[in-house]
Amino acid sequence: MKNMIKQYETSAIPPLGGGGARSISVLSPATVANVVCGFDILGFALNNPTDEFTVSLSNEVGVQIINNDDFNLPTNPEINVSGAALLAMLEECTDVKGFTLISKKNIKPGSGIGSSAASAAGPVVAANVLLNNRFSKSDLVRFAMFGEKVASGVKHADNIAPAIYGGVTLIRSIFPLDIISIDAPPLHVTVVHPQIEVRTADARQILKQNVLLKDAIKQWGNIAGLVAGLIQHNYDLIGRSLEDVIIEPVRSILIPGFNEVKQKCKDAGALGGGISGSGPSIFMLSKDAATAKAVEAVMKDVYNRIGLDYQTHLTTINQEGVKVV
Amino acid sequence: MKNMIKQYETSAIPPLGGGGARSISVLSPATVANVVCGFDILGFALNNPTDEFTVSLSNEVGVQIINNDDFNLPTNPEINVSGAALLAMLEECTDVKGFTLISKKNIKPGSGIGSSAASAAGPVVAANVLLNNRFSKSDLVRFAMFGEKVASGVKHADNIAPAIYGGVTLIRSIFPLDIISIDAPPLHVTVVHPQIEVRTADARQILKQNVLLKDAIKQWGNIAGLVAGLIQHNYDLIGRSLEDVIIEPVRSILIPGFNEVKQKCKDAGALGGGISGSGPSIFMLSKDAATAKAVEAVMKDVYNRIGLDYQTHLTTINQEGVKVV
Repeated sequence: MKNMIKQYETSAIPPLGGGGARSISVLSPATVANVVCGFDILGFALNNPTDEFTVSLSNEVGVQIINNDDFNLPTNPEINVSGAALLAMLEECTDVKGFTLISKKNIKPGSGIGSSAASAAGPVVAANVLLNNRFSKSDLVRFAMFGEKVASGVKHADNIAPAIYGGVTLIRSIFPLDIISIDAPPLHVTVVHPQIEVRTADARQILKQNVLLKDAIKQWGNIAGLVAGLIQHNYDLIGRSLEDVIIEPVRSILIPGFNEVKQKCKDAGALGGGISGSGPSIFMLSKDAATAKAVEAVMKDVYNRIGLDYQTHLTTINQEGVKVV
Repeated sequence: MKNMIKQYETSAIPPLGGGGARSISVLSPATVANVVCGFDILGFALNNPTDEFTVSLSNEVGVQIINNDDFNLPTNPEINVSGAALLAMLEECTDVKGFTLISKKNIKPGSGIGSSAASAAGPVVAANVLLNNRFSKSDLVRFAMFGEKVASGVKHADNIAPAIYGGVTLIRSIFPLDIISIDAPPLHVTVVHPQIEVRTADARQILKQNVLLKDAIKQWGNIAGLVAGLIQHNYDLIGRSLEDVIIEPVRSILIPGFNEVKQKCKDAGALGGGISGSGPSIFMLSKDAATAKAVEAVMKDVYNRIGLDYQTHLTTINQEGVKVV
């Protein structure tokens, strides 16, 4: 890939980072947002799948995008998720003219496992290494949210924060941004992506603007229980807390087989799970690899019977987020 | 007090507990429920004030109540908070005829620091010691909730659970009961009780049945942050998370001086705080004793100026709950 990048002329701007590197490649992870009862505030990163991005400093003003995959994503940076994130970063770099990005997406857009967040997070992390890590992780989340806005019209951070911080992250507040890393015990994650399209904007639109106070109380009992269960490494409490009385009952209608998958996965030993992000992917957490594999078999079985194409991922929680390679 | 108790005849029922004790005295603590963003799910116990209860086994059927204070609480156990809790316990004891209770309340009813919960929790803990601790803490919460129902018409556990378990407790769910002890760093608590009456039932009635989803999301971000902050012993995060966008804006209207007290206490160094339970008491958390004392001075100053009688308590979190003396 590297030979595709235009040579960077060192004389034009001050010497910049990455130990003298002129291009930085990263793996940017898929993420699971919402995590059942943590709508808009909780997310975690996955070790697989990942997107690959290579960022170089450029003498041309702005961001040049080279797509190295078959998704036909726009190369105009203003309407490209990665491009918008890099442009937001550029605005705060008076000493940098531009970036060149080579993008190789493996996470399918629209799958519900943070494809747009991976596109937004990876390039800004790579660019920051080129710039001697002048920006904090919180800054990088701020830049990457411009990418999310291109993708869904809303600046949300529940995929971006875990993509950049790794592990499980709580976004207590977006404005001002307040991200807290939540320690968690080892967890195995099984994801099934039934091949139907659920647009994030549609999945958001069908939600009711008002909720019953009594349902909200149940929900904040569960999110409190989930956070306590994660930090206390209490698997049973994690399982009991993975209950969503507000979002899931509405959104799950868009996902064929959802209730059957969820119930049968729990019967197979999963701690619990639900819709990943705004769907259509469904994730399940398990205590050990064998259970996670049994859960995958259940998922395959349901969608084979329904006759819907699908893809599965058997993975674990990614503790480091975007990884420089 | 003990000479006021009718002698218990040992021949009537099998030998029962407490190392042969025939009467058990306990101190039952005040508690702070809701804890700003944890409406109906969070509470903690205070080291001061406490109620005093002495329970004895009795040969008379049912519960006899002797009041040893000036509150003129009913002695009919069916409509007495302690009595209702002990009657609920008796129903599950085929080998016990009845209890005698001597009640000395120090926590003013209607203050908002769990007076009814102290009345419900203390006697069942004492009775359980007499019965060789045959019941679990979760059982005791279940019995004590019958007392709360007498007090406010609702079986809630957010004062009872911390009174019985001690420390900070999360009630993830009431039906089925799911109580989680939340580890917390040392915290100093300042409470001011302005001497006005706010009935729990009224404070509940003025709440809206519906809330905006966007407010609910803020609230569960904050409760998740508060639980994480407590367990991680992160005082700053605790302070940032003590924000309530749903209940406080409505209920605080019933408490004269609320906004001024809250703001000035934070200016004086308090981490944060808000309405204790359904009010009218206001609690503030501080990192150290000196700040908690400065906060008390601020509270006194505001209510002296308003010209409203008040009582303050300067205390810490009670880690053991109801204490046998």
